[in-house]
Amino acid sequence: MSETNRAFRLRKRPDGELAEGDLELVEEQTPELVDGQALVRTQLLSLDPTNRIWMSDIRGYMPAVPIDAVMRGIGVGEVIESRRDDMPVGATVSGFVGWQELVLADDNLLEAPLAVLPEPLPAPLPAFLGALGHTGITAYIGIDNAELKAGETIVISGACGAVGSIAGQLAKERGARVVGVAGGPDKCRHAVAKLGYDVCVDHKAEDWREQLDTATPDGIDVDFENVGGPIMDHVLGRLNIGARVSLCGMIAEYNTYNPGGEHSGGLTNIGQLIMQRATIQGFLVLDYGDRFEEAIGHLAGMLGAGKLHYDETIVNGGLDAAPEALAQLFTGANMGKLLVRVSD
Amino acid sequence: MSETNRAFRLRKRPDGELAEGDLELVEEQTPELVDGQALVRTQLLSLDPTNRIWMSDIRGYMPAVPIDAVMRGIGVGEVIESRRDDMPVGATVSGFVGWQELVLADDNLLEAPLAVLPEPLPAPLPAFLGALGHTGITAYIGIDNAELKAGETIVISGACGAVGSIAGQLAKERGARVVGVAGGPDKCRHAVAKLGYDVCVDHKAEDWREQLDTATPDGIDVDFENVGGPIMDHVLGRLNIGARVSLCGMIAEYNTYNPGGEHSGGLTNIGQLIMQRATIQGFLVLDYGDRFEEAIGHLAGMLGAGKLHYDETIVNGGLDAAPEALAQLFTGANMGKLLVRVSD
Repeated sequence: MSETNRAFRLRKRPDGELAEGDLELVEEQTPELVDGQALVRTQLLSLDPTNRIWMSDIRGYMPAVPIDAVMRGIGVGEVIESRRDDMPVGATVSGFVGWQELVLADDNLLEAPLAVLPEPLPAPLPAFLGALGHTGITAYIGIDNAELKAGETIVISGACGAVGSIAGQLAKERGARVVGVAGGPDKCRHAVAKLGYDVCVDHKAEDWREQLDTATPDGIDVDFENVGGPIMDHVLGRLNIGARVSLCGMIAEYNTYNPGGEHSGGLTNIGQLIMQRATIQGFLVLDYGDRFEEAIGHLAGMLGAGKLHYDETIVNGGLDAAPEALAQLFTGANMGKLLVRVSD
Repeated sequence: MSETNRAFRLRKRPDGELAEGDLELVEEQTPELVDGQALVRTQLLSLDPTNRIWMSDIRGYMPAVPIDAVMRGIGVGEVIESRRDDMPVGATVSGFVGWQELVLADDNLLEAPLAVLPEPLPAPLPAFLGALGHTGITAYIGIDNAELKAGETIVISGACGAVGSIAGQLAKERGARVVGVAGGPDKCRHAVAKLGYDVCVDHKAEDWREQLDTATPDGIDVDFENVGGPIMDHVLGRLNIGARVSLCGMIAEYNTYNPGGEHSGGLTNIGQLIMQRATIQGFLVLDYGDRFEEAIGHLAGMLGAGKLHYDETIVNGGLDAAPEALAQLFTGANMGKLLVRVSD
């Protein structure tokens, strides 16, 4: 049966922050299903810094979302109609659902097949986009790549963000001194009280550099980098010999990146990598498919043992709320994983 | 017997380029030797970009040269007086001789003991500061760390410099496509004709970015980075998935580095490390002492087989010429290894 879908299509590439007119909300009829297809109703849409990258025509790790295409996005949903045996009506699926209410689950048409989640769900649904989803796995891989050891000092920027909040707890589990960097006193209190950071530096304070120096008296062995910009630059200046930078994200740049042109700022302390014989390793979770099971197993174990705190900011208001909600990632308004509830 | 030594002492830290008054040439009497000491006459002084780092009070890999101390430098010399059995008169030694004509070789007083070279010398003396010295070993380690493979594309900045010229030939030996970046058409011609580069991009040409793009149609798998600045930034923008950056030097920054302050430029393309899952590894040759023999053996083998071309720029005029000669490294006036002949 044909249904009315509502979807955000990318009409033009944002110049700086996402602005009105960059995305357009359109109503479209879904086609009658044929064999091999199912129809999924999006329940939760994950908002990630990388969404902004996908909108830009830069040299990214996936092609830019084509102009006029439905905006790319990860989410979970429920199968409401089906002509495929592996996705019965009522099943819960996750993957690249896009910024839309209804998804035509056709493996030949989607960028990547949707995955069917276990039934019954072993954790609340939002966790499959957060602590037990790509976000949690990203944190796990980034900590593991850095070979963080007990007694070392790690700095995690975006300390209360979706990835950072999990990374901090994985770092603590390894016995490291864990120093967070977050925006504002509320987040910093939360980081210490709930997420187990030893110290949290408020980068909105004028003296954040001094705070960071004080918090890392023995220098920095590992940087789990989510932000880039001046924070990363300062951290680079405090690396110890043999330090490792797990480069996960540089959200400070995503709104201003100007390929081929001039760019405000830029990192000035990369030379410290020589002096300290240090390494930066950029990574993307999608390269680690063969370790998802290990990562999810580890995180689920911590969760089950009550040793993993996770935060969600769920924005209500349906799909319509997505563009405005995305801005929270860049202003830092969200705590933990940022989701939009598209339907119940 | 007491002798008159002439030495450059660091009187103040340079602000930008080394200027008159930063170093002072002084005359001093050497002490009477006691047991365990020898007196060495410096023959050749190696000028390296890192000399400039040693003058600055930044977070370097060795302590800054103290104010009023003899300027640190690597060189070779001949033992002219001795009260130690391991350094007979006439022996040739190499190591941290300092910017001075006479060196008191006392292991308790020097930063590092001098090494006695084999007798007779298996190659011309200057080679022990270049192709078979710390410079050649640096090139060897940097190429090896990057795990450069046949068929890959490597870019080497400072292509005709002391390290770059050797790195280029080691890269070619591995069967890579080797792209150099050097300053000026003469150097570029030399890079292709004598050093075996497949292509050399003249970074003084206005269209150097386009030239570099054309020279790397399949992107860049390895960057052997000696320069930093806009060249490195552009290279970062062309890295392939899984690319490795061997970060050896950033000479473009050594005169302008301003610790804790504002800094012109800065790298804007570090985010590409995420997109391309790429790695930067900073390294220093002094960490690889256990591989010096392997490296020198490999380089000596190439040299013996006539497969290693090396260039020297030897500045005459004695020790006095050292400060002015150092500037050549930053203007790019030298070809290959830059040395000062302090005595015959």
